[in-house]
Amino acid sequence: MASSALLGETLAQVLIPVAAIIGIVFALLQWYLVSQVRVSPEHRSGANNGYDDRLIEDEEEGADSVGVITKCAEIQQAISEGATSFLYTEYKYLGIFMGAFAIIIFLFLGSVKGFSTQSEPCSYNKEKLCKPALANAVFTTVAFLLGAVTSVLSGFLGMKIATYANARTTLEARKGVGKAFITAFRSGAVMGFLLAANGLLVLYITINLFRLYYGDDWEGLYESITGYGLGGSSMALFGRVGGGIYTKAADVGADLVGKVERNIPEDDPRNPAVIADNVGDNVGDIAGMGSDLFGSYAEASCAALFVASISSFGINHDFSAMSYPLIISAMGIVVCLITTLFATDFFEIKSVAEIEPSLKRQLLISTILMTIGIAIVSFVSLPSEFTLFNFGTEKTVKNWHLFVCVAIGLWAGLVIGYTTEYYTSNAYSPVQDVADSCRTGAATNVIFGLALGYKSVIIPIFAIAVAIYVSFSLAAMYGIAVAALGMLSTIATGLAIDAYGPISDNAGGIAEMAGMSHKIRERTDALDAAGNTTAAIGKGFAIGSAALVSLALFGAFVSRAGIKVVDVLSPKVFIGLIVGAMLPYWFSAMTMKSVGSAALKMVEEVRRQFNTIPGLMEGHAKPDYATCVKISTDASLKEMIPPGALVMLTPLIAGTFFGVETLAGVLAGSLVSGVQVAISASNTGGAWDNAKKYIEAGVSQHAQSLGPKGSDPHKAAVIGDTIGDPLKDTSGPSLNILIKLMAVESLVFAPFFATHGGLLFKLL
Amino acid sequence: MASSALLGETLAQVLIPVAAIIGIVFALLQWYLVSQVRVSPEHRSGANNGYDDRLIEDEEEGADSVGVITKCAEIQQAISEGATSFLYTEYKYLGIFMGAFAIIIFLFLGSVKGFSTQSEPCSYNKEKLCKPALANAVFTTVAFLLGAVTSVLSGFLGMKIATYANARTTLEARKGVGKAFITAFRSGAVMGFLLAANGLLVLYITINLFRLYYGDDWEGLYESITGYGLGGSSMALFGRVGGGIYTKAADVGADLVGKVERNIPEDDPRNPAVIADNVGDNVGDIAGMGSDLFGSYAEASCAALFVASISSFGINHDFSAMSYPLIISAMGIVVCLITTLFATDFFEIKSVAEIEPSLKRQLLISTILMTIGIAIVSFVSLPSEFTLFNFGTEKTVKNWHLFVCVAIGLWAGLVIGYTTEYYTSNAYSPVQDVADSCRTGAATNVIFGLALGYKSVIIPIFAIAVAIYVSFSLAAMYGIAVAALGMLSTIATGLAIDAYGPISDNAGGIAEMAGMSHKIRERTDALDAAGNTTAAIGKGFAIGSAALVSLALFGAFVSRAGIKVVDVLSPKVFIGLIVGAMLPYWFSAMTMKSVGSAALKMVEEVRRQFNTIPGLMEGHAKPDYATCVKISTDASLKEMIPPGALVMLTPLIAGTFFGVETLAGVLAGSLVSGVQVAISASNTGGAWDNAKKYIEAGVSQHAQSLGPKGSDPHKAAVIGDTIGDPLKDTSGPSLNILIKLMAVESLVFAPFFATHGGLLFKLL
Repeated sequence: MASSALLGETLAQVLIPVAAIIGIVFALLQWYLVSQVRVSPEHRSGANNGYDDRLIEDEEEGADSVGVITKCAEIQQAISEGATSFLYTEYKYLGIFMGAFAIIIFLFLGSVKGFSTQSEPCSYNKEKLCKPALANAVFTTVAFLLGAVTSVLSGFLGMKIATYANARTTLEARKGVGKAFITAFRSGAVMGFLLAANGLLVLYITINLFRLYYGDDWEGLYESITGYGLGGSSMALFGRVGGGIYTKAADVGADLVGKVERNIPEDDPRNPAVIADNVGDNVGDIAGMGSDLFGSYAEASCAALFVASISSFGINHDFSAMSYPLIISAMGIVVCLITTLFATDFFEIKSVAEIEPSLKRQLLISTILMTIGIAIVSFVSLPSEFTLFNFGTEKTVKNWHLFVCVAIGLWAGLVIGYTTEYYTSNAYSPVQDVADSCRTGAATNVIFGLALGYKSVIIPIFAIAVAIYVSFSLAAMYGIAVAALGMLSTIATGLAIDAYGPISDNAGGIAEMAGMSHKIRERTDALDAAGNTTAAIGKGFAIGSAALVSLALFGAFVSRAGIKVVDVLSPKVFIGLIVGAMLPYWFSAMTMKSVGSAALKMVEEVRRQFNTIPGLMEGHAKPDYATCVKISTDASLKEMIPPGALVMLTPLIAGTFFGVETLAGVLAGSLVSGVQVAISASNTGGAWDNAKKYIEAGVSQHAQSLGPKGSDPHKAAVIGDTIGDPLKDTSGPSLNILIKLMAVESLVFAPFFATHGGLLFKLL
Repeated sequence: MASSALLGETLAQVLIPVAAIIGIVFALLQWYLVSQVRVSPEHRSGANNGYDDRLIEDEEEGADSVGVITKCAEIQQAISEGATSFLYTEYKYLGIFMGAFAIIIFLFLGSVKGFSTQSEPCSYNKEKLCKPALANAVFTTVAFLLGAVTSVLSGFLGMKIATYANARTTLEARKGVGKAFITAFRSGAVMGFLLAANGLLVLYITINLFRLYYGDDWEGLYESITGYGLGGSSMALFGRVGGGIYTKAADVGADLVGKVERNIPEDDPRNPAVIADNVGDNVGDIAGMGSDLFGSYAEASCAALFVASISSFGINHDFSAMSYPLIISAMGIVVCLITTLFATDFFEIKSVAEIEPSLKRQLLISTILMTIGIAIVSFVSLPSEFTLFNFGTEKTVKNWHLFVCVAIGLWAGLVIGYTTEYYTSNAYSPVQDVADSCRTGAATNVIFGLALGYKSVIIPIFAIAVAIYVSFSLAAMYGIAVAALGMLSTIATGLAIDAYGPISDNAGGIAEMAGMSHKIRERTDALDAAGNTTAAIGKGFAIGSAALVSLALFGAFVSRAGIKVVDVLSPKVFIGLIVGAMLPYWFSAMTMKSVGSAALKMVEEVRRQFNTIPGLMEGHAKPDYATCVKISTDASLKEMIPPGALVMLTPLIAGTFFGVETLAGVLAGSLVSGVQVAISASNTGGAWDNAKKYIEAGVSQHAQSLGPKGSDPHKAAVIGDTIGDPLKDTSGPSLNILIKLMAVESLVFAPFFATHGGLLFKLL
């Protein structure tokens, strides 16, 4: 049945690592370019990114340039140290968790066949002998640890780059908005390419190392590889939740006292929580998002590889077809590289109005180029016809079917991205309507904002539904998995434009703290407003891909657990479905309450400092930044445990006590419900933030009628923005990890649940 | 297999109508007692509810009693006229809809067999001949119209009673909180018993009339009866949505200008929107809730009867077993009657603190008594063993199994009621925490309130899941249907304590508008605070029962459409699931935006009046109430159409173009997702309202530290309350109709979809 592919194994073995290395080299090159912007005053007259521009600072105010640069460097240093120290503390906790969970994985999977070291007949090819279950337990554990370490590394590197780039962006803003944009965007690209390439490379090396033991037992090999996805996503969960609580406790606390009570601007250096707030952007939005998207990528690859291994690819040992998911990602790196040049070299940003279109163009260019890339990969690396595993039956598939699957995932991502932009950018009527509703106060602002978030769910869900239907119909669960990979194939570009947001946000903060001119703050604000939208787009991608990934993992779990049907009409499944649909609410309740409580503590501390430190309000005395950093750190580390436990324990409890059918219901329920909550929370928050920025910027006549800063509509908008903070940066984006993580965990533990699960029903 | 029941057909035929008539007589008796409170000054020295109490009004202020009474009567008249006129206008629109939809039902169902008038072999008993499909089309249409008219009647009667009782409650409040409580509660009971008895009686009569034609073709008979549920629920949808938009546009608009901008109290007669606000309570909370719960009751009965008709009850023509659902409801009326006496006659309320416990006791007493009632009914009206239809297979069931099913539904209702009370009453820490978060402003209040709503979902969902699992396992879909009936069996008491809320709210409004003393307003406020909680409990019941009812209808739909399995792993089902889970968001976006826009218009009008009518603020001039009433009326009639269309058209589109499998997915998805949204929205709104009342009442030291009225925390609490209004009174409670209505509509149209549906997939 299966014919052979054009691309031989040797070529596939070469192309994948080469693409990864190209990505890493490109990232380093971008880093080098960013590093040309000096933050030490001595060499200021140096390269300056290759140009020798006059600085508006000099022209307009004749300000003390050296003083400003020194101050920027100091602030950058403080933010970087705060972020590094928090991440180290967080990773200490995560290290303990990682170790403990590694033991659980080993024990649960080892116990499936009573820790026997004997080879077993393969599950899907009974004539052959496969490696013992104990080996799978060991290798799954190793893959888990590798995934976890890679995830942590991804987040950490992202944070390092962002804190390296923020002050440089501020300084470049003195030369013009275009220069600042390029610095921020290049830095985002460093993160995007490093993560994408690193994720691919580690996975590629792991597979090849595991092959040394597994030989031609690909079933066992790719089953063990699923641990990689679990490791990646479990770290991402804690990163997202911990970072999210950290950043929003600081942000909400700083705003409530600073902006609302004391009427001082955002990021004012007199505000004691200001450093914590800026640290938060880097540990939450950057490190959290990095881990999250790495997790999605790892899981999508694992799901695809697992399903392929029990299909004709695996059974015929066709390595290049088997590596199709990896080759897609490799192609993605090359495509994103070309796309990046469009933003940094082929065009130049000259005015504020060009920023958002330029970022949007990135999405479109990468999608178009990648479509061609997918076509090439599909026709050279796949046999023209092959069979795929479809819940116990075989499905005959042609190579162009897979092309359609990947492409539809990719384009669904674009639709989600553009929809998100429409609902969260203040260039369009939805956000402007929300801003307008601030006329009648905070209550209508909140009502309109919530309604906007709910409404913004519609198109993404239809896009996901179409992608699911088409890819599922063409290539069963493998189709879903590669559709997810399609959406994630341009991850380098996605991450670049996403990381750009918090970097610009920080750049604005540094400008304010360093006392730079109003004009520069305006430029960084414009960068930041575009950044809010791209952050929302990034979250949209993360959620959309999470939905597809979870479904693919769900399918893989169902296959591995040996379930043929997940029937809603069975009470076991239905109760799983309804309880699963409830989990996103439980989880959100925990994370939002955590942010609220931590913010209350922060408010008390900030108030205390304003009341007890003489001269603080007048700018004569320095606030005690460290105590605020400590409050955020303590709160986030303590509060990330309950929601983390909820997500990690639910599949274990459901699988062990209620069995695989109920667990399947839980996964489906949390998937279909969580996607909605996540999208609406992210977009509502993004819209509120930009409605506030719309009033502050006062570009149109309408916006001016609502402003200026400090007017009643503006105050109402600030309240909305504050409410949106935990929605868009804590609970919303954590939810996509919830749905993915429960699915991948179920997949990893499937053999255990299938053998020993359902205790409660067995007892009854 | 099936043995015969103790209760013969004749006795069953007598007992059901007798119980209904007892309910109606009891309701009339309560009405008579309420009517003893005179609102015309001439007879003031009359019966006074049988007591001759001194009025605090006289003691404390020597106020002009006759003047006060006249004023109350005037206001009552205005509210009643406003409500009646709105409902008449609404019903005109609904009449057109009813006619149009009746034609659709007839055409769709008639076309199933090409409008043939020939008898057909029965679906579940192929040896017999059943009535032609065309007859089913005709009778379903008639049942639809009957259900619609009964629903409209239920809402209208409720409104009439409530507007009759509100001023009487105010006047009784002069004598003490106990007297006022009894008046409000008795009026609630009038509504509860009238609705419960009326719903049962109409259904009973309809069945007996239809039997004249159908004879022993019970399959066709009970298939046609499903139209009754559809009629009830579709009217309820428009009633809830239209009434909800009406009441909240007025409420939000009145609050935003009155309380926030002008700093005048709630219900101040100077506020031009005050009459519209009070009218809204009656058309939204009362008429809407009445139609809603009637709809649930009608649908649960129809689902149970339909499943029974294709089980051994139907096939053996065992009328008393067949009537089990009706006998349960009949028993419920008797039990609720006894329960009511505990509140009105056996105990007397002496202080404010006793109100909430007394209402809670009602729930507990009715549940305990009803458990006994169910046991009796189950053992006398059912054969000791019988078989039930279970998706193509037969399931053997014993009578005590059904007892367990009904009882578990009933007790799950109590758990939901108590959980709701815990999360929305200001006697417990959740609401107090929300109130406390107002210290740091509106933003933290909103964050904590949303988190509270999300958290309040957990226990109800587990309660529903347990009820579903047990009843499904014991008696398949019939078990779910009777569990829903169990939860609804105490509907008379549930409605009584629910209707009590808006009546008290209106009583407070009348006291304020009539310029009565502060003390009286405090009493009505205390009644109202308890009323907010009971309203939330009522919504909890409505949602919980809607979840069970929808599942039962879903099961009936699946049976009728001939589906054996609803497999999540099929792409057709999965896309239905995820799109279905999105619908509650789409729907909520529409309704919340509608309330927001209508409120903005109201705000402008109220501001205009304050600015242009000289002497209005000083109380010298009268505002123009009528324009505000018109704004609410126009907005609600216009804005109820899109959400209504969404709900009514979705099953038709999904079934016709995508087929029964996708439609099954849509129903399951909207059910599991909608329940969560509905519960969290209702409870968040209820909690905010009571957090505000907690600060205003200032009973504890903690509450005093947050107050008084007009303090910053209180202002923050008012913002939360305003945001909660559309959540708890418009979008939240409408969602349970969404999930029920789509299910019952699918059930009614199932034969059409099964025959002609899935056009799109047929084309591809």
